[in-house]
Amino acid sequence: MIELTLKNYQEKIDMRLDMLLSLSAQPYNKVVEAARYSLFAGGKRIRPILLLEFYKLFGGNDDCAYNFACAIEMIHTYSLIHDDLPCMDNDDMRRGKPSNHIKFGEGMALLAGDALLTESFGVAARTIGIDEARVKDALTYLSNNAGINGMIGGQVIDTCFEGETDIDLITKTYSLKTGALIKAAAVCGSILAGADEEMQKKAEEYALCVGLAFQIIDDILDRQGSEEKLGKPVGSDLKNQKVTMVDLLGVDGAKAKAKELTDRALNILDELTNENDTLKEITNYLLDRDY
Amino acid sequence: MIELTLKNYQEKIDMRLDMLLSLSAQPYNKVVEAARYSLFAGGKRIRPILLLEFYKLFGGNDDCAYNFACAIEMIHTYSLIHDDLPCMDNDDMRRGKPSNHIKFGEGMALLAGDALLTESFGVAARTIGIDEARVKDALTYLSNNAGINGMIGGQVIDTCFEGETDIDLITKTYSLKTGALIKAAAVCGSILAGADEEMQKKAEEYALCVGLAFQIIDDILDRQGSEEKLGKPVGSDLKNQKVTMVDLLGVDGAKAKAKELTDRALNILDELTNENDTLKEITNYLLDRDY
Repeated sequence: MIELTLKNYQEKIDMRLDMLLSLSAQPYNKVVEAARYSLFAGGKRIRPILLLEFYKLFGGNDDCAYNFACAIEMIHTYSLIHDDLPCMDNDDMRRGKPSNHIKFGEGMALLAGDALLTESFGVAARTIGIDEARVKDALTYLSNNAGINGMIGGQVIDTCFEGETDIDLITKTYSLKTGALIKAAAVCGSILAGADEEMQKKAEEYALCVGLAFQIIDDILDRQGSEEKLGKPVGSDLKNQKVTMVDLLGVDGAKAKAKELTDRALNILDELTNENDTLKEITNYLLDRDY
Repeated sequence: MIELTLKNYQEKIDMRLDMLLSLSAQPYNKVVEAARYSLFAGGKRIRPILLLEFYKLFGGNDDCAYNFACAIEMIHTYSLIHDDLPCMDNDDMRRGKPSNHIKFGEGMALLAGDALLTESFGVAARTIGIDEARVKDALTYLSNNAGINGMIGGQVIDTCFEGETDIDLITKTYSLKTGALIKAAAVCGSILAGADEEMQKKAEEYALCVGLAFQIIDDILDRQGSEEKLGKPVGSDLKNQKVTMVDLLGVDGAKAKAKELTDRALNILDELTNENDTLKEITNYLLDRDY
């Protein structure tokens, strides 16, 4: 059931992304090719789906929010391309395929990431059918959470404090590196739908729990998941001497933590609505995934 | 006279940039430090000044457009940081100082560029006192011209067609790589001020001439300028086997071309106004500069 819902979303999101970033006969087409290579590498589209679900939760009517949803997926994809570069995590594989820089070279991977990031804000700004002040507010929120006090900040801590970490610092890192963009998805959906500040706060709390749980599950899968399903070698955190929540809590402790965070997220959803089963199913699905 | 006008602008722009990207006690402060290092390295602030002048030309009242002006300077700065990286032009010096990656390492330079680009759109979206629909339109225009069909496209051609070029391809590359962001400055200023489409078109034509002339002057300075004034070694185009307009037209031919483009730009200004002396002085100043 939830798989079908997700699949329907994924198809609509992919169609929109395909339209927004289409190939052309321009001499600079190579960068579009490189960007599309990573954009259509089989991502789960969790962030855009969350945005669309929160948009609907607060009364929005579907299609208008697809551009904004795609913008968040483009930002997520740029961050993966840049993260894989030799000067960052130096990962050769991603989703079962050679990383962007292995396939297209470092220079083109850098530019493909820059392109996705730059275009994402234009795509979001070209939202039609939603009040312009809301679009402006959502854009501001998105930039803040993708930027220095959000995703990039988390990446910086990850880079600067490699190996030396405790549970507070690691929680902060996860909240920024993974949590901020998931938060942006839920909150931008809410802002675009016209949710009031109290509701936006609830969406934010929900997303922070989900984002933390999401990263902890990633840690567990990196330790004991299936290489085939993950599409990348397991054990890369160990290889990169990265301290994760699994090191601090053990696998069982990390699993319990992810479950606790998921339960908290479900409780927040209950406060928001007693109708939206899809959001609840997605929340549970994220906890139980094996890839 | 024009020097004083520019200096006044530069001071106000620097003050706003300083406020928008301020240091903090966050554990990820290093990326702010790295971003500020390049942002305050002595840039001429040509793009934000052009934006503010076009905003005024079409009746806008100063202060409201400073955020947007700063956003364009942040995008310009990110592009310089990423251009200097080893996987791109591999330049060790910029404006008389070590390049960002020499000073902070490649990973941090990558993130500093990403941060400036991400934050720039938030800064632009936080424009206050200007109609929201105009801000949205200007944001779209900015993203388009900084993105694949603009600055990044030019960078891609530069990377892919190194050494093999003719006057048409080089003109296209310059129009995208340098011209597009200068165009965005002039046109976004016009959009924000509420200029109609015909006026926006004129601003676009003006900026394309200025942008091309600007890059040709850069080529000439790289061939016969003063290393001290430029703050970087001259002859880097030759070193990188980059074909420039100087190779195709000779120094005198390139100078004549830049003069011709500047005259055309001045004519367009005459069609727009017979009052704005500052814009004319800036246009001439850009042709006559030696750094």
